[in-house]
Amino acid sequence: MDDDRPLFFHVMAYADDADRDVVDMVSGNPDWEPPAALRDGIREFADAPVADYQYPPSEGNAELRAELAERHDVPVERVVVTNGAGEANHLAMACGLEAHAGNEVILTDPVYPYYAGRTELLDAEAVYVPVADDGTLDPADVRAAASDDTALVVACSPNNPTGAVYGEEVKRELTAIAEAHDALFVSDEVYDEFDFSGEFRSALAFDSDNVAVTNSFSKSMGTTGLRVGYAILPEHLVDPARTRHMLTNVAVTAPGQHAALKALRETPDSYYAGTREMLEERISAFCAALDDAGADYIQPRGSFYVLARFDGFPGTLDNTKRLIDEAGVAGMPGEAFGSAREEWMRFALVTPRAAEAADRLAEYF
Amino acid sequence: MDDDRPLFFHVMAYADDADRDVVDMVSGNPDWEPPAALRDGIREFADAPVADYQYPPSEGNAELRAELAERHDVPVERVVVTNGAGEANHLAMACGLEAHAGNEVILTDPVYPYYAGRTELLDAEAVYVPVADDGTLDPADVRAAASDDTALVVACSPNNPTGAVYGEEVKRELTAIAEAHDALFVSDEVYDEFDFSGEFRSALAFDSDNVAVTNSFSKSMGTTGLRVGYAILPEHLVDPARTRHMLTNVAVTAPGQHAALKALRETPDSYYAGTREMLEERISAFCAALDDAGADYIQPRGSFYVLARFDGFPGTLDNTKRLIDEAGVAGMPGEAFGSAREEWMRFALVTPRAAEAADRLAEYF
Repeated sequence: MDDDRPLFFHVMAYADDADRDVVDMVSGNPDWEPPAALRDGIREFADAPVADYQYPPSEGNAELRAELAERHDVPVERVVVTNGAGEANHLAMACGLEAHAGNEVILTDPVYPYYAGRTELLDAEAVYVPVADDGTLDPADVRAAASDDTALVVACSPNNPTGAVYGEEVKRELTAIAEAHDALFVSDEVYDEFDFSGEFRSALAFDSDNVAVTNSFSKSMGTTGLRVGYAILPEHLVDPARTRHMLTNVAVTAPGQHAALKALRETPDSYYAGTREMLEERISAFCAALDDAGADYIQPRGSFYVLARFDGFPGTLDNTKRLIDEAGVAGMPGEAFGSAREEWMRFALVTPRAAEAADRLAEYF
Repeated sequence: MDDDRPLFFHVMAYADDADRDVVDMVSGNPDWEPPAALRDGIREFADAPVADYQYPPSEGNAELRAELAERHDVPVERVVVTNGAGEANHLAMACGLEAHAGNEVILTDPVYPYYAGRTELLDAEAVYVPVADDGTLDPADVRAAASDDTALVVACSPNNPTGAVYGEEVKRELTAIAEAHDALFVSDEVYDEFDFSGEFRSALAFDSDNVAVTNSFSKSMGTTGLRVGYAILPEHLVDPARTRHMLTNVAVTAPGQHAALKALRETPDSYYAGTREMLEERISAFCAALDDAGADYIQPRGSFYVLARFDGFPGTLDNTKRLIDEAGVAGMPGEAFGSAREEWMRFALVTPRAAEAADRLAEYF
């Protein structure tokens, strides 16, 4: 990333300023309702005692950590509540780089741009491993790229932006590679509730000291603005991560933690299943229209993004703007996600108008 | 700080576990009500549209920034909303160290321990300038300590833990020292609403490129757990701070920002005046009892802490525990705040039982 400031903001501002109706598929902001219990949790907090308005424990609300530890079957000491998965990834990457040998960070290409930005912020070196055309990651490529200079392997599954789901074998291999090179595998599992393939498995399953798992309620509960997430760290990183967390943020917002805990406890499985179903319908309608438009695309197996390519219309920033002005559809240029998908554009299915957007694309191309 | 983990947690846990009734004066957690509008803001947010539950702008809610910019009479571009003053200080220190020459951080002794911890986290060198017995800071001492190795001067006024208020002339001098050495003066003004001396003046008054001001609603609105604060940065640090903020936290919690904005707009001056008055009464009762106990203490001119020293009873961690067990009063050992006040203890006046605590101390000594 030459530009420190992700392109997101630039494209969103351009779409906002457009003279015409635009279907916004730029950012990963859910448009669906958070769980009722989450709103209830916020409402409850309005009348909470004064003591609840004060610093929560730096490492997070004790009950929230206990609930997360139980769900993930890890000792509660390993759970640190963070300001979203953003801070969880920041902590895991910063502390992993400090504790592990080497200064290289293995990332996939295409990449979630914050990983690339953080690598630069932390004065480390990014090493990109291209994924296959269908979004799958071949661990042999990661093994070939790894060396004793590797400090981190960072991967997100279900994946943003490809929609791929790296299955159990891939994650086991990434863990083994991290173990072989005294590195940390940072497994970002923020889209774990959006697995349509049935193949998602948490990297915690391998019970390795070389794995940190990051997650949040931003996507699973439709509230990227709550800013409550968590890291599950291997033992040797717990103290450094708690210290860094404390000296960066002191603690995570109390009303958000209260609401997240209530929602975690009280939200029925049907909420998550309903969201998944709704997204599968959107994806299916959107992809059908992409077929009509003669576009290439990766069929998402998880998350809620579609990477697509239109013949003779590379996914540059200029063409992204043309698509906003001329077709009324706003996506993200592929260049935001590294060099491997510069021809492509990413569409986030966070609007009930996804099918309409696809029809516009079909008509335009 | 040899120990990365501040002593606060240790002492609080010890007081919690005590077998007897203990008046808790350990941490700076207000015990008074937040403004009604703040609770109303949380309540309102429970029913906000889904879009309000998503990522706020990374640099902060536009209306909140505008409101803060107007109140502080600075261009809105210079305001970054942060996860409390904690993150504001972190950003100012990290970006200041990167942008300014030198690797030394001038701190006062006694010091707020997070400044010392951050200096270490950021691989910089702390240089301590002792304050006078009454808590006042002589800028000549800061000038003598400053050199071209100085990157930051960090000072908090009204001060924690001394209760001193560094007046306009002191802040002007700290600004001039920063300017003379290509350094950044980080002026932590989180206790600005707790000035009993009438001498508080923001460092923004000097309109210098070498000043960053940090603040939050944690103390002024009695809610350290909300985690909404802000940094007002000189122009050259705005972009680096926004980038670092984005790559650390992505954004600040939306319900908290919503509530802070509403409270900022709707809270009458009488709220702040009422809190000040209540604290002045507590301080006066507490200090009168300290007189009875024959203790030395610094008469606070701002904030809500009293540093006190008991003859033949140095403020060690052991004695702090003894005081909990034998007198039923929990303070903080002076060693938490650097080497200059190891004989002292800090008492936070965040309990309606401050006078009772002082009576217990008078009886005990």
